[in-house]
Amino acid sequence: MGSSFGQLFRITTFGESHGGGIGVVIDGCPPRISLGESDIQGELERRRPGQSELVSPRQEPDRCEILSGVFEGQTLGTPIAILVRNQDARPEAYRELKETFRPSHADFTYEAKYGIRNWQGGGRASARETIGRVAGAAVARKVLATLFPAIELVTYVTHVHDVAAAVNSDSVRRSEVEANPVRCPDAAAAVRMKAAIEQARLEGDSLGGIIECVIRGAPAGLGEPVFDKLEADFAKAMLSLPATKGFEIGSGFAAAAMKGSEHNDPFAIREGKIRATSNRSGGVQGGISNGENIIFRVAFKPTATIARRQQTVTASGEETTLEARGRHDPCVLPRAVPMVEAMAALVLCDHGLRQRALSIS
Amino acid sequence: MGSSFGQLFRITTFGESHGGGIGVVIDGCPPRISLGESDIQGELERRRPGQSELVSPRQEPDRCEILSGVFEGQTLGTPIAILVRNQDARPEAYRELKETFRPSHADFTYEAKYGIRNWQGGGRASARETIGRVAGAAVARKVLATLFPAIELVTYVTHVHDVAAAVNSDSVRRSEVEANPVRCPDAAAAVRMKAAIEQARLEGDSLGGIIECVIRGAPAGLGEPVFDKLEADFAKAMLSLPATKGFEIGSGFAAAAMKGSEHNDPFAIREGKIRATSNRSGGVQGGISNGENIIFRVAFKPTATIARRQQTVTASGEETTLEARGRHDPCVLPRAVPMVEAMAALVLCDHGLRQRALSIS
Amino acid sequence: MGSSFGQLFRITTFGESHGGGIGVVIDGCPPRISLGESDIQGELERRRPGQSELVSPRQEPDRCEILSGVFEGQTLGTPIAILVRNQDARPEAYRELKETFRPSHADFTYEAKYGIRNWQGGGRASARETIGRVAGAAVARKVLATLFPAIELVTYVTHVHDVAAAVNSDSVRRSEVEANPVRCPDAAAAVRMKAAIEQARLEGDSLGGIIECVIRGAPAGLGEPVFDKLEADFAKAMLSLPATKGFEIGSGFAAAAMKGSEHNDPFAIREGKIRATSNRSGGVQGGISNGENIIFRVAFKPTATIARRQQTVTASGEETTLEARGRHDPCVLPRAVPMVEAMAALVLCDHGLRQRALSIS
Amino acid sequence: MGSSFGQLFRITTFGESHGGGIGVVIDGCPPRISLGESDIQGELERRRPGQSELVSPRQEPDRCEILSGVFEGQTLGTPIAILVRNQDARPEAYRELKETFRPSHADFTYEAKYGIRNWQGGGRASARETIGRVAGAAVARKVLATLFPAIELVTYVTHVHDVAAAVNSDSVRRSEVEANPVRCPDAAAAVRMKAAIEQARLEGDSLGGIIECVIRGAPAGLGEPVFDKLEADFAKAMLSLPATKGFEIGSGFAAAAMKGSEHNDPFAIREGKIRATSNRSGGVQGGISNGENIIFRVAFKPTATIARRQQTVTASGEETTLEARGRHDPCVLPRAVPMVEAMAALVLCDHGLRQRALSIS
Repeated sequence: MGSSFGQLFRITTFGESHGGGIGVVIDGCPPRISLGESDIQGELERRRPGQSELVSPRQEPDRCEILSGVFEGQTLGTPIAILVRNQDARPEAYRELKETFRPSHADFTYEAKYGIRNWQGGGRASARETIGRVAGAAVARKVLATLFPAIELVTYVTHVHDVAAAVNSDSVRRSEVEANPVRCPDAAAAVRMKAAIEQARLEGDSLGGIIECVIRGAPAGLGEPVFDKLEADFAKAMLSLPATKGFEIGSGFAAAAMKGSEHNDPFAIREGKIRATSNRSGGVQGGISNGENIIFRVAFKPTATIARRQQTVTASGEETTLEARGRHDPCVLPRAVPMVEAMAALVLCDHGLRQRALSIS
Repeated sequence: MGSSFGQLFRITTFGESHGGGIGVVIDGCPPRISLGESDIQGELERRRPGQSELVSPRQEPDRCEILSGVFEGQTLGTPIAILVRNQDARPEAYRELKETFRPSHADFTYEAKYGIRNWQGGGRASARETIGRVAGAAVARKVLATLFPAIELVTYVTHVHDVAAAVNSDSVRRSEVEANPVRCPDAAAAVRMKAAIEQARLEGDSLGGIIECVIRGAPAGLGEPVFDKLEADFAKAMLSLPATKGFEIGSGFAAAAMKGSEHNDPFAIREGKIRATSNRSGGVQGGISNGENIIFRVAFKPTATIARRQQTVTASGEETTLEARGRHDPCVLPRAVPMVEAMAALVLCDHGLRQRALSIS
Repeated sequence: MGSSFGQLFRITTFGESHGGGIGVVIDGCPPRISLGESDIQGELERRRPGQSELVSPRQEPDRCEILSGVFEGQTLGTPIAILVRNQDARPEAYRELKETFRPSHADFTYEAKYGIRNWQGGGRASARETIGRVAGAAVARKVLATLFPAIELVTYVTHVHDVAAAVNSDSVRRSEVEANPVRCPDAAAAVRMKAAIEQARLEGDSLGGIIECVIRGAPAGLGEPVFDKLEADFAKAMLSLPATKGFEIGSGFAAAAMKGSEHNDPFAIREGKIRATSNRSGGVQGGISNGENIIFRVAFKPTATIARRQQTVTASGEETTLEARGRHDPCVLPRAVPMVEAMAALVLCDHGLRQRALSIS
Repeated sequence: MGSSFGQLFRITTFGESHGGGIGVVIDGCPPRISLGESDIQGELERRRPGQSELVSPRQEPDRCEILSGVFEGQTLGTPIAILVRNQDARPEAYRELKETFRPSHADFTYEAKYGIRNWQGGGRASARETIGRVAGAAVARKVLATLFPAIELVTYVTHVHDVAAAVNSDSVRRSEVEANPVRCPDAAAAVRMKAAIEQARLEGDSLGGIIECVIRGAPAGLGEPVFDKLEADFAKAMLSLPATKGFEIGSGFAAAAMKGSEHNDPFAIREGKIRATSNRSGGVQGGISNGENIIFRVAFKPTATIARRQQTVTASGEETTLEARGRHDPCVLPRAVPMVEAMAALVLCDHGLRQRALSIS
């Protein structure tokens, strides 16, 4: 269970890192949205390994195939299945992992839960699983572009280890994010981040960081009271991504040290519209978007796979040590940017459709 | 929509702060669990106003009534409906709010979403809505006590504004939490927190803070891969609570500034069992519990309702000012402790049942 | 589990025949629909006992109370909870049933499933459970009247035991249905049905029958391909009602003995619109409404509770006999008419909202 | 929407008759169930065209591929994706259907719902869609064999047009069903059915019929009160199949003409167990299995595609005539047997897991 996400725009993903392939079924996509494999392929390129010197050199072409739900370039309203074959599978590279639990990976917990696991490259717990999310989100983006054309998502790295970027969330553009392999729009910080990541690789180590996502142009009224608050669904979406340890919206954890008189966002009339004149709410009040920018941040831990020797145990219960030999990213942040953005798009699309269903005007 | 939570142990809540009452329907409770109104009432007492000098002086007896699903002191397996009548309703106290949007409240967003709102005391967006959650969680706790008797939840305040507590999550007990009205088990910090809250009240202001929850004794294997990871469901649960701005598990945002060699939790054999010798994972790896303590933190903003004059607008689009006159908590943290714990119990109970359903041994 | 129905317009019911009460929570009702208790009460009157000489003489006022979700006569968009208190409870009348399983009732199966049951009057398996459905459907009808004002539902008895009515589904009106206590719009047949029911009561026996529902004015396009076909959801809805044994749509079981050349509904142009010139499809093709009348029938078994002596067993496993002494209906059909219509309205409302959510024009 | 079925054992199907392929994702399959492609392929063979002289001569090899969720011959607990490629696609054979709505098909309603349709061979409304169901059910059968090894399903044709079979549901075996191409275990009736079908083909016509399914060995206690009654889920499952017009369980529509004293199933003690001594209930009482044989019937209309000339209209709104030239089955019953059985297995598996989840003993 747990492989579906969304109420109306609902994706169901499948696939392990090794095996036939990875994919997604999207149920609830409106009909007559133009869609082709190139719409999806572009997003997949942003998440795949081998795209820059900063990430894992694995070469996975990750070509997607639309199996259903599209006819003559348009969605049919029926489920859209998308498949990406696994190709660069080298299970023998993982044979050591058959017997040894990698620290801070899911090897032990999958074994505890299921009594069986695909030990080849992480199986279902591999970040390769996110291909299904990114493909599904590529479709969500097309729906958003049709139904909510004003919505714009920009997602970027703000922190890598001890390097912090300065980014203006009101104006940052996607082209600035894509201008460097770190996906940090503060070019100077990006240089330092890149250096830090390369140093970590040399040391056989890895680095954590923070990603920020800003959504501009969302209408007021998205999100449902109580359990499906917009920020609750963003939080679930983000904490469902591999390697995430925290989520905050607007003022976030800093709110804990603030007073109400500092934190509240006053309302005023601006150009005839009701506007909040500050945005510590992060664009959401009472779980519902207020028309201001939605802004949240996600904390990522350092990659668990490191080349240094670590203490661990075998599946049969003996203490041992492990030195990772596989290909891995010393910092997941650059490749996690499209994953965060994908989950954000899925949440927005689902809530957009939900709001349409119950509007009576 | 959005008023249900959980897959197998599923609660559906209802009710506004003013109107007939607040309640919950619990579907999926196993049969033959002993349950009475006193089991629920005890938890409701912890969240209600008027329980100490630190919180709103509203006097709401909040007596619960079990309407269905229980027979001769035992659950029937059929839905359990629980109702708490609204009593201390003084809608006239809120008449000003019919016309004026309170800053950083849900007044404006509900109006934008629905074109109508119950302006009496916050309606569905009132923290009074959490009665349904707490009542549902009281039942979840009984289920957990039956099926997973080793599980123990302790939840407490660690920060109020700039006061931080020192708490040992391995050993803290609920009695220490309940020993003072702040619900902070560090008695010295609690004194300073109490003073800070009283000072904020005098200033017509409010304070934010942080709550931590530790779950001891949970078995390995709870949580589902991909979207329903245990931490994803905790994150959603917590961000669905009023006034929350952030969630982190284990190392949380601090992980962003760490290296993998510092962050990974080594495995070792301890008393014949596989154990992680540190717990930066926070008890969850790959979305599944690993048998160590589950530990997470939730950031709360300062109460939006403050006595100070604020800039805002009317529903008809004119700028105005507002000074809250109602009864309110200058700091939600003490009363939020049982709310956080309630949501944690609901997530655990649901995932406990889910794991039982699919186990084949 | 199993106490919720609907995807977007979703009801969750609760309550046993004895205990605090029976009710429903409706999540997903659009805002700003006018709604008052009288809208609901009228539908409840149609299903309650004591309304005519043909049904159980139990006197249950069944007064409904709206607990939430309505403000100043309009829906808020938040969950609507409706409660009907149990009043005419005489548990002592049922004490014999504590020990004895009534044939063809749910006593034995509840015991087998849960290991516990509320033996007072059928508990959750009592037809009194349908109060929640009827109340929820009263709200669905208001939504339909707002969003799909052309839709008209008429439901009526066509068979009681061996008496068959002749009804023209194209023209039958609700007033004709309500013109007699049998709820059969063929007045002559109704007289014979009434006599048959009275005779059965005198004999301590009970009678089965068939109810037909016609929905006029539904637009083409309702229903989802594959699993949530419109007729599939009607079938589930009807077979979820107590005492139902069968469902058929359009030609129904008679289709089994037909040839395609007899069965197919030709298309033609009528007044500029595409129309089927016959309606063996029953208004649904490929699971989706085609704009013609939707027409289906539901088979009801004779009431299981009869005054005649029957062979049965005790809960402790001994053979015994049972003669029902309680108050009961010798034929459920008259009171089942509003139940069938309620479920039909719920299905239509849910599919109506679903279709709106995904339409892009 | 509407492409998923089941709560715990949940399948999501995808695919049109023409396009990349047809498939299913199964979420909620327990781990460590032995599973290979041959388990699935065997069931697919039973439903595919070209298997006998009675059905469509289309040659579709329908080879399945397991894409995920299985490792070294065992299920992993993660989603199982199964893909069957489309091969014998001759879209040009359907070009006439681009402009013409086939009577009693889904062409018109899909167009009305979506404003677009894949006119090649029925698209999503093709019976080819059931491949996903049958593949999913093949996995459900493996789960049932592991968790409920006593359960046995036998499904067979009882009526084709005016030919009725005599079958003893207590003893009929699958081998008797598979002994002839009609899948009717009454060999004499099967001969007459075969002749009737061949005659219909010669006349360019088609025939309806009835399929019965008996489930032996199911434990008491499966099914949920109120909406998810076992028969309600069977009814939905069956009416979701193409060409179905009715469903009945146990006594079915015949119950309408019975008296309670005839219909009730007395209880007695047999070999120390509580047993119903007749089975008009069809194995389900109050929505929950009672341990007796579960028995239900499904009515199928005659195939809508016939070679005779029919009146219809074009998509642009002109009257025309149509003579089907494609390959088609003059009677769907033989191939529908495995589809009915598949849906029955899915319902049983889901309810079996649901019952396990909430049992506390």
